[in-house]
Amino acid sequence: MLVFAQFGAGRIGAIHAANLAASGAARLAHIVDVHEAAAATLAARHGAQASDAVTALRDPAVAAVIIASSTDTHADLVIAAAKAGKAIFCEKPIDLSLTRVDEALNVVRAAGVPMLVGFNRRFDPSFAELHRRIGAGAIGAVEQVVVTSRDPGLPPVDYLKVSGGQFRDMTIHDFDMARWMLGEEPTEVFAYGAALVDPAVAAVGDIDSCMVLLRTASGRMAHINNSRRASYGYDQRVEVHGSKGRLIAGNRVPTTVEQADADAVTTEKPLHFFLERYADAYRIELAAFIAAVTQRTPMPVGAEDGRQALVLAEAALRSLRENRPVKVSEIG
Amino acid sequence: MLVFAQFGAGRIGAIHAANLAASGAARLAHIVDVHEAAAATLAARHGAQASDAVTALRDPAVAAVIIASSTDTHADLVIAAAKAGKAIFCEKPIDLSLTRVDEALNVVRAAGVPMLVGFNRRFDPSFAELHRRIGAGAIGAVEQVVVTSRDPGLPPVDYLKVSGGQFRDMTIHDFDMARWMLGEEPTEVFAYGAALVDPAVAAVGDIDSCMVLLRTASGRMAHINNSRRASYGYDQRVEVHGSKGRLIAGNRVPTTVEQADADAVTTEKPLHFFLERYADAYRIELAAFIAAVTQRTPMPVGAEDGRQALVLAEAALRSLRENRPVKVSEIG
Amino acid sequence: MLVFAQFGAGRIGAIHAANLAASGAARLAHIVDVHEAAAATLAARHGAQASDAVTALRDPAVAAVIIASSTDTHADLVIAAAKAGKAIFCEKPIDLSLTRVDEALNVVRAAGVPMLVGFNRRFDPSFAELHRRIGAGAIGAVEQVVVTSRDPGLPPVDYLKVSGGQFRDMTIHDFDMARWMLGEEPTEVFAYGAALVDPAVAAVGDIDSCMVLLRTASGRMAHINNSRRASYGYDQRVEVHGSKGRLIAGNRVPTTVEQADADAVTTEKPLHFFLERYADAYRIELAAFIAAVTQRTPMPVGAEDGRQALVLAEAALRSLRENRPVKVSEIG
Amino acid sequence: MLVFAQFGAGRIGAIHAANLAASGAARLAHIVDVHEAAAATLAARHGAQASDAVTALRDPAVAAVIIASSTDTHADLVIAAAKAGKAIFCEKPIDLSLTRVDEALNVVRAAGVPMLVGFNRRFDPSFAELHRRIGAGAIGAVEQVVVTSRDPGLPPVDYLKVSGGQFRDMTIHDFDMARWMLGEEPTEVFAYGAALVDPAVAAVGDIDSCMVLLRTASGRMAHINNSRRASYGYDQRVEVHGSKGRLIAGNRVPTTVEQADADAVTTEKPLHFFLERYADAYRIELAAFIAAVTQRTPMPVGAEDGRQALVLAEAALRSLRENRPVKVSEIG
Repeated sequence: MLVFAQFGAGRIGAIHAANLAASGAARLAHIVDVHEAAAATLAARHGAQASDAVTALRDPAVAAVIIASSTDTHADLVIAAAKAGKAIFCEKPIDLSLTRVDEALNVVRAAGVPMLVGFNRRFDPSFAELHRRIGAGAIGAVEQVVVTSRDPGLPPVDYLKVSGGQFRDMTIHDFDMARWMLGEEPTEVFAYGAALVDPAVAAVGDIDSCMVLLRTASGRMAHINNSRRASYGYDQRVEVHGSKGRLIAGNRVPTTVEQADADAVTTEKPLHFFLERYADAYRIELAAFIAAVTQRTPMPVGAEDGRQALVLAEAALRSLRENRPVKVSEIG
Repeated sequence: MLVFAQFGAGRIGAIHAANLAASGAARLAHIVDVHEAAAATLAARHGAQASDAVTALRDPAVAAVIIASSTDTHADLVIAAAKAGKAIFCEKPIDLSLTRVDEALNVVRAAGVPMLVGFNRRFDPSFAELHRRIGAGAIGAVEQVVVTSRDPGLPPVDYLKVSGGQFRDMTIHDFDMARWMLGEEPTEVFAYGAALVDPAVAAVGDIDSCMVLLRTASGRMAHINNSRRASYGYDQRVEVHGSKGRLIAGNRVPTTVEQADADAVTTEKPLHFFLERYADAYRIELAAFIAAVTQRTPMPVGAEDGRQALVLAEAALRSLRENRPVKVSEIG
Repeated sequence: MLVFAQFGAGRIGAIHAANLAASGAARLAHIVDVHEAAAATLAARHGAQASDAVTALRDPAVAAVIIASSTDTHADLVIAAAKAGKAIFCEKPIDLSLTRVDEALNVVRAAGVPMLVGFNRRFDPSFAELHRRIGAGAIGAVEQVVVTSRDPGLPPVDYLKVSGGQFRDMTIHDFDMARWMLGEEPTEVFAYGAALVDPAVAAVGDIDSCMVLLRTASGRMAHINNSRRASYGYDQRVEVHGSKGRLIAGNRVPTTVEQADADAVTTEKPLHFFLERYADAYRIELAAFIAAVTQRTPMPVGAEDGRQALVLAEAALRSLRENRPVKVSEIG
Repeated sequence: MLVFAQFGAGRIGAIHAANLAASGAARLAHIVDVHEAAAATLAARHGAQASDAVTALRDPAVAAVIIASSTDTHADLVIAAAKAGKAIFCEKPIDLSLTRVDEALNVVRAAGVPMLVGFNRRFDPSFAELHRRIGAGAIGAVEQVVVTSRDPGLPPVDYLKVSGGQFRDMTIHDFDMARWMLGEEPTEVFAYGAALVDPAVAAVGDIDSCMVLLRTASGRMAHINNSRRASYGYDQRVEVHGSKGRLIAGNRVPTTVEQADADAVTTEKPLHFFLERYADAYRIELAAFIAAVTQRTPMPVGAEDGRQALVLAEAALRSLRENRPVKVSEIG
């Protein structure tokens, strides 16, 4: 029974807490949130206690932490948890500043604690199966990757202001997906971006639509397209072309109902957003973390993966600002 | 908190017990099984106690029972539970004998307890959405229904001997589906059947493949096709034709991965069998039972539905034996 | 260069004439139609001459005839063409009366001329590929066949009066498809039918909706469902279940465009009716006839196939009238 | 009856000649090819005569020419045909040199003859329907376009040497598609490319795989991905994202057969290559040319479209060589 403290009682925290409760292999002891009422409610639902961070991290029964609080608290909590010797499950991004990420990761390395960064999509059954087949040689050598990733609707502008911008906040998942599928580290990034959805996005210095290219040393290429608004729901697809074939993982739908009438043949729209689409992925991700901690096996998505996706986001941002391809080595 | 006693700790009992445990609205107090070790194991997993039937039904805290034991015990347990004033969730079929079903239902009616018969497919999100759209007028008046229902593999012949035969054991689900989708009671049944999969099936007086037609007083028609063996997995589809259009609910797949290579374009086979395909349906079904009991609303699938599907199975069996269309009124 | 005379300058005649014109292997010399203007127009378009039947059949250059005139003229023309020693391509049905069919076929046999009956669907690339795979063993032994065949809209009641009824006019194609896919002769037929689309159909003694079952001596089964009206277009599908798998051939669509928006994901409706759906089939069918005549190879769909489908239609009609399964041997 | 002379009796010439022959609105009078035997054979098949260029262009009956000869002859033939006052249907590209293209177009403009450049994909029913829906407002304002275009196999290296390279030879179709779908002129191009399929391609200074980005003045973006080798056949898809939805036009398949067995569910691979996939498009394209000439309406794809696609190819080539985004205005 792996005992957890969890930081964050918001939307994503509620998912992890429920998955912990349903897991037969773990127990949630503490929930910490600056919104004390939220912490208390979630703790009550799952038989945990609302605590402060110090109490939670000092509890010797606690062997692992989930960091699902606001992004600006991640690095401090990673550092504190690492110093306390806890295994760390940290939502992405570790931080919006690469310097802060490196500080935190240095502490993690020094402490020797295992750490998983929450790139939940790697645990989506369809993407995982696609990746498994690449590894099994189903399409030969990977040559090109296309990642389509479009959100159902624009978040509040107040959120955008503190989000770090589209590349660090949204595309970061797709950079991770591209790296994972390419099977080789990207060495250069080129990005176009614009505020096509809402001029308010441009007003806060951000973009809401982008197209990115990446390439690797051996010449493999990847493309990412993003929009903050897809009227038909959450569009999450990956396509990989190899020397022997092509793999596509598409969207998932609520039901298989198909209707044919005088107007058209219609099927359901994709599952609405990440809570629906990645419900399975969140559950599998947490189980994978618990298994890696308790069996002392390597983390399926490590701290370095979290760092490297941020590096690609930084490179894309510089590319956008300077309108030129940016070498990953320029960033760090 | 609705307190349950459950009869049966086998494959389907394990599903219901886990769904009860995950439900926030119910608690499992007793598990009863003639295999005492199975009862004890399942009880331990979910914080219940292994009991005998008398103890479980005498417990005044128990307000509802789940009957998931072997078919030959259903009717007695329904009667005992009804006399004890418990709400009843009974797996299909209530009994293989219509006389016994009627005895049990008379006791249920006299006791005035709510009862749900476990036609789990009505709670499958795709079939439920299809049915909802019929009710919403999406395809006008229903005219024809086609139910495709094929199992991945033949059960052991020892099971077949006590199963009541393909119509009562397997097609009974499809009779319920056809009734539900037709929206009008079938008045006549015609059936063809044969042992095409394995001659051992014929040796025990059963069939493994069948095609059935039903019709209603107003002329609506339904077709059911069954096989005990589909090499590609569990094939569960419904197609409804109405005056204004057509609705189809198809199979569900483990992942959306599509592979294209020099040989073909391939997608995944359907989910393997009922445990996978109807995992959601079992969960939703139990929640619907709990909601109907606690809110004193009508059962979504009542005892009469259980009886009527069995009547259609009996009619099909007589049709097969006498090679003629059989009026439902001949059966009862 | 195979020289043709064609009887019939209507809708289906226009298709055959155009396919002849585009074929490099044949030439259309005569067009015969009681509507002389129609014959003249079509003849002019393709460099043929409008003739009367006697002239056309006496022309020694003519080696083959296409009979695409009204159904009541087919048998006489078959007989005349056979006596004139011409190869015969005859649209289905040969006649609505089995007696007349037998008279005609006796003359054909005596004359020793090759004859193809126009079951165009056998030449549809999708159905042909499905059938080819059955023969290649892709799904093992055939066990069950489901034929879905639904027209976009009700023909004029005046047509229905002379059509011979739904089984002889419409289902006859599906009887042929079921026979072809079963790979074994049906021995018994059971049919339900009703006028669900329009009471005017019942008023002329016909049905517009039906469901049919067929079985063979070894226990194979087939189901056909028909409607004279499908709001979404022409619905033409075949599904075959075998011991090792399942084959489905579905509808074809005008374009592959898929639209996703706030309402739904929509794709195109099936091709509207037989002229669109079977355009390829008509072309391939005629080419197969020409090849069989010129190379003296067996006809891919022979006169006996035309007769046997009519026998099944007769059996279905008797089954409907007497509400009982009818042995094919009762018909002839 | 529009009378044609055609230059080129190769693979694409054979298609155009057959489509002319089947058209009721045109007649092919002359076929010109340096391979005289090829010209003679094709001429004989369609009742034309094999001629030399001078004879063909001097024939006053000839009102239109099809230029389907090798690329290096296009510009001279365009100029000669324009001076002879003939309407011009010219296969893409007009020339590999932008200077030569401009020379030719100046003559065309001065002569005032109508000219169509053979971007056949605009006439593919699926792409045309997708474009029609954009114009009809189905997805609101266009924001992003993704063009997937992958050939089944590498052409001979000898062909690559004279092809002008992947951008001018292959991607040029996709540049046209992106322009057409964007609905706004691209102003900048960025391209990655590599020889991933075969090192022999790099040895002749070419690439076989590329990913391109384009953007417009208002911020719209397009992505193109190409490969010279797709093991599963010709992969030709377009995806357009707008403010109100998404449109996708996918591949077409030979048949709709779906096979399910113990291994997988398989469907057919896409139509093999352009001759199969674009058979309809070639026919419709020629009909559109004939209609525009005879009705004196604007050409659906004009000479300027041919030029502009080449400009984008040049910009992509410069981008690849200099590894920077290239403004279209730098090219011309």
